[in-house]
Amino acid sequence: MKNIGIIGGTGYTGGELARILSMHQNVNIAAMTSRQNAGLRVSSLQPNLKGYTDIEFTESIPDSVDVDLVFVATPHGAAMKLIPGFMERGIKAIDLSGDYRLHDILLYEKWYGHEHTDPENLENAVYGLPEFYRDSIKKADLVANPGCYATSAILPLAPLVRSGLTEGPIFIDGKSGTSGAGMNPSQRLHHPTCGESVIPYSVGLHRHTPEIETVVGDISGKDTSVLFVPHLVPIIRGIISTCYFRFAEEVGQEKLDALYSKAYDSEFFVDYVKEPSIRAVVASNHAQVASHADGVSAVAFGVLDNLVKGASGQAVQCMNLMLGLEETEGLKAPGLGV
Amino acid sequence: MKNIGIIGGTGYTGGELARILSMHQNVNIAAMTSRQNAGLRVSSLQPNLKGYTDIEFTESIPDSVDVDLVFVATPHGAAMKLIPGFMERGIKAIDLSGDYRLHDILLYEKWYGHEHTDPENLENAVYGLPEFYRDSIKKADLVANPGCYATSAILPLAPLVRSGLTEGPIFIDGKSGTSGAGMNPSQRLHHPTCGESVIPYSVGLHRHTPEIETVVGDISGKDTSVLFVPHLVPIIRGIISTCYFRFAEEVGQEKLDALYSKAYDSEFFVDYVKEPSIRAVVASNHAQVASHADGVSAVAFGVLDNLVKGASGQAVQCMNLMLGLEETEGLKAPGLGV
Amino acid sequence: MKNIGIIGGTGYTGGELARILSMHQNVNIAAMTSRQNAGLRVSSLQPNLKGYTDIEFTESIPDSVDVDLVFVATPHGAAMKLIPGFMERGIKAIDLSGDYRLHDILLYEKWYGHEHTDPENLENAVYGLPEFYRDSIKKADLVANPGCYATSAILPLAPLVRSGLTEGPIFIDGKSGTSGAGMNPSQRLHHPTCGESVIPYSVGLHRHTPEIETVVGDISGKDTSVLFVPHLVPIIRGIISTCYFRFAEEVGQEKLDALYSKAYDSEFFVDYVKEPSIRAVVASNHAQVASHADGVSAVAFGVLDNLVKGASGQAVQCMNLMLGLEETEGLKAPGLGV
Amino acid sequence: MKNIGIIGGTGYTGGELARILSMHQNVNIAAMTSRQNAGLRVSSLQPNLKGYTDIEFTESIPDSVDVDLVFVATPHGAAMKLIPGFMERGIKAIDLSGDYRLHDILLYEKWYGHEHTDPENLENAVYGLPEFYRDSIKKADLVANPGCYATSAILPLAPLVRSGLTEGPIFIDGKSGTSGAGMNPSQRLHHPTCGESVIPYSVGLHRHTPEIETVVGDISGKDTSVLFVPHLVPIIRGIISTCYFRFAEEVGQEKLDALYSKAYDSEFFVDYVKEPSIRAVVASNHAQVASHADGVSAVAFGVLDNLVKGASGQAVQCMNLMLGLEETEGLKAPGLGV
Repeated sequence: MKNIGIIGGTGYTGGELARILSMHQNVNIAAMTSRQNAGLRVSSLQPNLKGYTDIEFTESIPDSVDVDLVFVATPHGAAMKLIPGFMERGIKAIDLSGDYRLHDILLYEKWYGHEHTDPENLENAVYGLPEFYRDSIKKADLVANPGCYATSAILPLAPLVRSGLTEGPIFIDGKSGTSGAGMNPSQRLHHPTCGESVIPYSVGLHRHTPEIETVVGDISGKDTSVLFVPHLVPIIRGIISTCYFRFAEEVGQEKLDALYSKAYDSEFFVDYVKEPSIRAVVASNHAQVASHADGVSAVAFGVLDNLVKGASGQAVQCMNLMLGLEETEGLKAPGLGV
Repeated sequence: MKNIGIIGGTGYTGGELARILSMHQNVNIAAMTSRQNAGLRVSSLQPNLKGYTDIEFTESIPDSVDVDLVFVATPHGAAMKLIPGFMERGIKAIDLSGDYRLHDILLYEKWYGHEHTDPENLENAVYGLPEFYRDSIKKADLVANPGCYATSAILPLAPLVRSGLTEGPIFIDGKSGTSGAGMNPSQRLHHPTCGESVIPYSVGLHRHTPEIETVVGDISGKDTSVLFVPHLVPIIRGIISTCYFRFAEEVGQEKLDALYSKAYDSEFFVDYVKEPSIRAVVASNHAQVASHADGVSAVAFGVLDNLVKGASGQAVQCMNLMLGLEETEGLKAPGLGV
Repeated sequence: MKNIGIIGGTGYTGGELARILSMHQNVNIAAMTSRQNAGLRVSSLQPNLKGYTDIEFTESIPDSVDVDLVFVATPHGAAMKLIPGFMERGIKAIDLSGDYRLHDILLYEKWYGHEHTDPENLENAVYGLPEFYRDSIKKADLVANPGCYATSAILPLAPLVRSGLTEGPIFIDGKSGTSGAGMNPSQRLHHPTCGESVIPYSVGLHRHTPEIETVVGDISGKDTSVLFVPHLVPIIRGIISTCYFRFAEEVGQEKLDALYSKAYDSEFFVDYVKEPSIRAVVASNHAQVASHADGVSAVAFGVLDNLVKGASGQAVQCMNLMLGLEETEGLKAPGLGV
Repeated sequence: MKNIGIIGGTGYTGGELARILSMHQNVNIAAMTSRQNAGLRVSSLQPNLKGYTDIEFTESIPDSVDVDLVFVATPHGAAMKLIPGFMERGIKAIDLSGDYRLHDILLYEKWYGHEHTDPENLENAVYGLPEFYRDSIKKADLVANPGCYATSAILPLAPLVRSGLTEGPIFIDGKSGTSGAGMNPSQRLHHPTCGESVIPYSVGLHRHTPEIETVVGDISGKDTSVLFVPHLVPIIRGIISTCYFRFAEEVGQEKLDALYSKAYDSEFFVDYVKEPSIRAVVASNHAQVASHADGVSAVAFGVLDNLVKGASGQAVQCMNLMLGLEETEGLKAPGLGV
């Protein structure tokens, strides 16, 4: 039994980590931190966890607690203040913020708008997408957990770009459920604003743009240019990213099918399907990928639950790899379907 | 053409007043106030009004503008600071807050938690439910516009209680769309909280409780005791109040049908129907009432759009009466249906 | 490892049984029947089950398969044609339809509108609400799984009525997510009809009315009269039943709190809470109960996921008891929370 | 006062025509046909129209009724059987189906899958998009009312393609509310299927693809190739089409702004905005267009209410032009905003 800490346990990804880990056979939540809620029972704020965990929020991980690995679920900018301390103490860490996803510091500072204060660990951080970086994750001390939109776009794009068939920029139309925006109320997330609407935002400016370009570029070995337009849709959980691109010459559907089958047939958590469905994967760590060729144009879809495969579930998948556990442990549960 | 002012034009009821009045043939929005947005074009904050009004928000009604009537769409407590000034200047006013709905000052202070500073005008305020107070509204200088839940409950309850058939307390199960809670973001109105839930709140403590008791008591001449439980439902516009009560002895459906027909057959904005439907009335000033007898028990329904018949539409209906205009002017539009 | 059959596996409750059992350590889905889909892979119709079950739908349970227990998830009227066969072959059965919930045959025939053809087994059927019939369920060959609304109302009502404090009829305002109506498309379940509405239906006529009256009466030993009004709300999963009633004399909140604590403190799947929340229990077998006293009136709430504690999860809970397994096996998972 | 007939009055577009025309000062609904509902009061099926129209559905337009113009709101294929009769009798017609949108008969037959039986009138039909075909509509006897998706894509695309700046195929990511799919229940429109999902469908196969290509090509004088992927989103009314394209060389935002301002500054029903909002236009005949340049790539948005500017409102706008009335009559109403 391994001891786990969750730093920043009040937010949605922290709560989702606790929910998932409560079903995990080989780890124990030893500490959950929250500055504002220190001293409160976790289950008093997250009543779904009543009966599953008795711990209280603490300001930081108590000295009396030995943890093997921490999840850092704090906002961008805060994580890189905390990670060096864990690294020094030899505690493995998975960062759910964006702080360690872009190895290029200048790129980070351009898109995040502040200095990166931990270049040393940044260099060694591994991008936590097991389907493409499994071996590195197993050996990593620090994993940068991918963004939710990024995961939903990289899964359909990487095998394709790697094939060398595509040409020119890729257009990604992201559509996310509202839990992706976090637990803090805002005008955009106010039900009367978003409950019967579809709202594009951060057009061309979303920070997952360089993340997708970098990772797809790294996996495929090809420069990749992306125009990414996220949209808020009135569902709580779920993302579908619809990715448009062109081929250098006409490519048939069979060719696409073969590419994706090769990439994902042996992956437990990624299905290549004809008709992607958010309901099939919601509340699970499964993702779906689909594609449709149309002459020299084509479209590919990536579908997942933004809080699970798009955040906390993927982080647990990485944790399993880092701790030498079965990769699917605690995550083997079907999507809701209905 | 009459000149109208809207005090507190930034919120949902203020915006809805402007939307409705933009379709009114006989009045002109001469001023719209907002402390925080003074100087901004109304249509820059409420883009649906582009092409319908050119005015800018002002801090207060400019001296250069003569208004015949003002709508006061400020929060509870703020309205009673403003109304005396309008009364003194001989400007008719319709208050959309709760400040003038309860004539019993002690009752007001108990439920609203602060002193009432304008007892004088309170005494003369008329409750703005035209179906029951039409003649008084015509002569009123100050109208207290009814609460949204209150309207949805009084319409089905008043004819019934007046009949003398009911006995004992009435249970009102209110279900409201989220726009009823106003435009300020909060944890409860955050889409991930309420988007797939039904949330009871203020159980037994909602301020429309004494309003319903008072008005039903006044209309029926009978003491009325209500237990009111509001629920937030994930729709933007619309209320359905399901009202449960007992009869002193068994009452047949025909008797109920006759009672309601008598009350509402000549009312343009209230329909007595078999199957109440929020969609039939949404975006309109129409309300629906329905009932079902079950031995000595029964249930009655009231359905309306909380921002129209539940707030701004009803206020315009009162305005028409106060200004000697056709009661339906600017309001003659069917519900969306779909 | 026990072998399980699911009769009528195409519908929502059948699919949900398969989803839950795929996470169960001690049972194996040996057969899943569907007349219309015989020969198709289950996962081709229910893609969330891909990777979790390889079986195909069959017309009936193949002779070559030995099953220890069957879930019958067919419509009312069909179940009672099938149950006698299972009983004869010594196969335990849990019926998810309404066919074995009312022991009074005349009552069944009045509310269901057709003859009951299996009075013999009806007599021995046990009502599958473990919190009140645990010991009988353990010994039962045939369990009638409770209705979703019925469970959500009986849990808050039974301890209360049993106390002898209540008086007169009980009004139950039920609000259910749309999955409760099953998978067949209809005008009422068509998204443009119900997506932004709250729709009362079957007013005073819903078949869970006699079920609630019978079971609350049986548990409490008191005649119980209910007026039940179900409403469709635009959420997929979840029920909240708001139950209104009167006391013979004033009862304080502490008294209510004590009653419910006594009833549920030792129950893993039922929580007595201050603020009931559908999101806290959705996708789980947990239910919540809450209450609020208001003089001689009061309200109690029951909250659950209609497909889990309201149907398939509760059935699995019964199965565990009938097969001598740990009652929580396969069901120990928190609600989603978000 | 002109007399109007609505052929196929039961469906959503027929009902919406009746709703809009009930607010029109210069026309009268003289007949509304429905085979299945002949003899029933329109307001018994569409209760929102109670108080606005007294007519009954008839099988066809009664001989005793003289109509100046008919709206044909029947399915594709049925309209072209009816139109010749109206043309012969000298009755102007607006067809809301797809039967007269594609002048190229082979293209029609390829995408609609059946023969076109009225090539003669097809030749003379005018595409009913007033912003681009106003003068022709004024003189037309037969207008083909545009598709909802098509309108939402042509408005942002036509000015741009006409400018000669774009290059290569255009990708259109359409997101539509569920009312766009019509009133017949289906598995995809079943609330538990679509209520918390975003569902791509008819990928590359939707019939608005050739409509967009043809009309944008006609307006711009340039061959246009489109890959169109519609998605169903869980809102009732509203479309947003996000259109991705490339420029031959980098184009700045100012250039785009100038293009759209020129195209739409004088159009009452089309606004060029910074942040498109479905809620700003819902329930109105207004549309919004927005754009964002990103180097050699760009994105443009079109937003409207699929039942109004996307169908029945636009048809009334055409009717006004065809009958010599003020173009905005009956349509001058702001979107709901909230």
